[in-house]
Amino acid sequence: MDEKNTALLCDFYEFTMGNGYFLTGKKDRIACFDVYFRKIPDGGGYVIAAGLDTIIDFIDNLKFTDEDIETLRNKKIFDEGFLSYLRNFKLECDIFAVPEGTPVFPNEPIITVKGPAIQAQLLETILLLLTNHQSLIATKASRICRAASGRPVFEFGSRRAQGTNAAVLGARAAYIGGCMGTACAICERLYDIPAVGTMAHSWVQMYDSELEAFETYAKLYPDNCTLLVDTYNVLKSGIPNAIKTYETVLKPLGKRLSGVRIDSGDIAYLTKKTRKLLDEAGLPDCKIFVSNSLDEYIIRDILNQGAKVDFFGVGERLITSKSEPVLGGVYKLVAAEDSDGKLIPKIKLSENVEKITTPGYKEVYRLFSNSTGKMVADLIALKDEEFDFTKPITLFHPQFTWKKKTFENYTAVKLLKPIYLKGKRVYSSPAISDIKNYCNDQISKLWDELVRFENPEEYYVDLSQKLWNTKNELLNMN
Amino acid sequence: MDEKNTALLCDFYEFTMGNGYFLTGKKDRIACFDVYFRKIPDGGGYVIAAGLDTIIDFIDNLKFTDEDIETLRNKKIFDEGFLSYLRNFKLECDIFAVPEGTPVFPNEPIITVKGPAIQAQLLETILLLLTNHQSLIATKASRICRAASGRPVFEFGSRRAQGTNAAVLGARAAYIGGCMGTACAICERLYDIPAVGTMAHSWVQMYDSELEAFETYAKLYPDNCTLLVDTYNVLKSGIPNAIKTYETVLKPLGKRLSGVRIDSGDIAYLTKKTRKLLDEAGLPDCKIFVSNSLDEYIIRDILNQGAKVDFFGVGERLITSKSEPVLGGVYKLVAAEDSDGKLIPKIKLSENVEKITTPGYKEVYRLFSNSTGKMVADLIALKDEEFDFTKPITLFHPQFTWKKKTFENYTAVKLLKPIYLKGKRVYSSPAISDIKNYCNDQISKLWDELVRFENPEEYYVDLSQKLWNTKNELLNMN
Repeated sequence: MDEKNTALLCDFYEFTMGNGYFLTGKKDRIACFDVYFRKIPDGGGYVIAAGLDTIIDFIDNLKFTDEDIETLRNKKIFDEGFLSYLRNFKLECDIFAVPEGTPVFPNEPIITVKGPAIQAQLLETILLLLTNHQSLIATKASRICRAASGRPVFEFGSRRAQGTNAAVLGARAAYIGGCMGTACAICERLYDIPAVGTMAHSWVQMYDSELEAFETYAKLYPDNCTLLVDTYNVLKSGIPNAIKTYETVLKPLGKRLSGVRIDSGDIAYLTKKTRKLLDEAGLPDCKIFVSNSLDEYIIRDILNQGAKVDFFGVGERLITSKSEPVLGGVYKLVAAEDSDGKLIPKIKLSENVEKITTPGYKEVYRLFSNSTGKMVADLIALKDEEFDFTKPITLFHPQFTWKKKTFENYTAVKLLKPIYLKGKRVYSSPAISDIKNYCNDQISKLWDELVRFENPEEYYVDLSQKLWNTKNELLNMN
Repeated sequence: MDEKNTALLCDFYEFTMGNGYFLTGKKDRIACFDVYFRKIPDGGGYVIAAGLDTIIDFIDNLKFTDEDIETLRNKKIFDEGFLSYLRNFKLECDIFAVPEGTPVFPNEPIITVKGPAIQAQLLETILLLLTNHQSLIATKASRICRAASGRPVFEFGSRRAQGTNAAVLGARAAYIGGCMGTACAICERLYDIPAVGTMAHSWVQMYDSELEAFETYAKLYPDNCTLLVDTYNVLKSGIPNAIKTYETVLKPLGKRLSGVRIDSGDIAYLTKKTRKLLDEAGLPDCKIFVSNSLDEYIIRDILNQGAKVDFFGVGERLITSKSEPVLGGVYKLVAAEDSDGKLIPKIKLSENVEKITTPGYKEVYRLFSNSTGKMVADLIALKDEEFDFTKPITLFHPQFTWKKKTFENYTAVKLLKPIYLKGKRVYSSPAISDIKNYCNDQISKLWDELVRFENPEEYYVDLSQKLWNTKNELLNMN
């Protein structure tokens, strides 16, 4: 698959609908869509937004080739005028989005698209795919890094990723979410993410003895010698041979043993014993690196048990967000122009109450407390509403409306940034290191109650009175 | 990311090891690796192998560019001779693999790689990534299609896939595993997989009324008119409007209503009521299409409850294999040349018993019963062993060796096909339709006891006496 030609990576119904809008004079009718999710994976308190950089890359390169058109033509249901429109596709939409690395919450728009119905509809699949995947992994990484309590975590999951993009963009998202680096070498070329790695068990097996394998490695990489000690037996063979290697190879060179890695067995037990053996050998600075089916729960657990770990390598459970491998972001029509050119709020009802949408073209404001610096509430409003944020503001729960809270001494910022205006890009992604730092800073502004693994508090995401009225009028009309 | 330049999509340690083999005269030492998995996802009875086509594509295009070399050089740990070796990389390995669509079982090699250590090591990450992901999805699709009991299943998951490859290659794997098509339009261009789709809720919302939306669609697509009936209320609004649309638009044109799609609510209840309403309206041929967080368990459950469904659309739970999103395939060194050029079997021990490897360069034979046509056992042997398969053969369980079984009147076939010999490709992937048919045929050759969702029988995967002896000698030596 040529990554630069993915215009057809799109649900087929976008084309049947697009053709329909084209033929019935609705193609340039302005439509507004929200991207949002309803539920935080793993019962967590927040999601880290990610994926915008790849959305920009997709849209900047969006082009239907002759081959694409021929594929559609062969379906024998599309009008030639529509196909020609696609062949000459030129984006005219306004797209607003939350910057990568921002903590976001259920039921608030994290991307809004406003533009000709035929165009806005066509962006659905790819916007969801890229946002859902990368936000999912950034969020998981954030949880895992939190569990590691300051110990560096490296992403190790390429071999279990769901495809090459999942490996590479997953590593990028994990870096945003808090990881220090990755095992995936291409990420260093593509994104300047530090790639790390030393040896597999096969290295040890390739030599006649573990000691020979270690000594050979130490001679090759004396400045950063981390040895994998569990090919045969960690405590009886791996650690003694690592210490011997230090004595015979590194010490004479004036070098230290950088680390040992344990990839199997009981991590809590083995690391405590390992720490003791290394300390007794005069190697208190030798780091202990562990891997093997880790996630935030196991990391928390083994640290609670006193495991002696300096670095974590986390693979499949991070790169697939194994415990919950889907962030269920949706793309919902919230407003559309009527025949008089007036933007009408639209609602989607459902027998599943949580699937009812909030109508209207929207703005999202995030309120930060001036005294604590913490984020305290998000306010979703209609785009054209005006607020005086120098005054106290009273927000109320959108379902349990008697639950009210008044905020004073706060700063309100718009959460959604303009990315494209009338189809023209007005935003460039920051450097990955800046995104990472921004994410870290934003997470520090979450209340402690939000970052718990179990039963975190629910962050306030409230509707303005006007938006709440709009929604309830539509609900009562149907 | 340019998909044709993914040589660095590789765990970094492959390069530290490769550089080590290069510098210590071990680079051309022949090494043999097995790809195998230890556990079938979802507690199932078999895995469907997939991904070989993309492995061939990767290897055929494998090339380290100047940019790749520069990325490695910047790490300041690699020898210039090694970098030059990579720049001029030319594959010399023998690679054998199970064809896509083949049912495979734990602990048997599904790919073997034999070649210069430095080369065989470099293939680890990508072989695992592509095999693990695509086999996982093909396997999940097979389960879901089995639950649907002959009703066609369509893959609908692009928007929740873990990246663009996951969407596209996932759809391809799902097609191999039994799906009839996909919602993802690009798959029709790339792989000739039928792409399908009609309308989203946004189409219905774009019109002043549901009826107007349906009638407009029916006029546009009278030959294949499937209407989404749950935007407002399935039974009170969607179905009555669908029937009205048939009466006012389709019937006068001499057309039928092809189908209705229900995407929310209680599927069992709604489809039974819907079937009744459609039948009473003289539309017994109108198909009922359902979607909404389905998987094999929910499909089996609603069919048991008498749901009236003709087609299933399955999204996130298929495209991510949500209930178990990882197939844990590994790449293990099983033999390596010693300094005399003799191939020595290698073992990796572990305190986790299931992580102990089976040494030796291997062949896998699959035995089919001549009387039933069913596959009855797989025999893993050393590559150079000879068997007289015209005679009865007695196999034994590799752990519980007293469990023996003698097979008579069987046909043995080699499971692993040559893909590359001395680096030259000797295999071309069949057409996707042939792979799909082959898969379907092979699944029909599995015993019923293997295709249960819960507690399936364990398929016989046994070691030859010679291989068993080799493994046990190494185990006892350590």
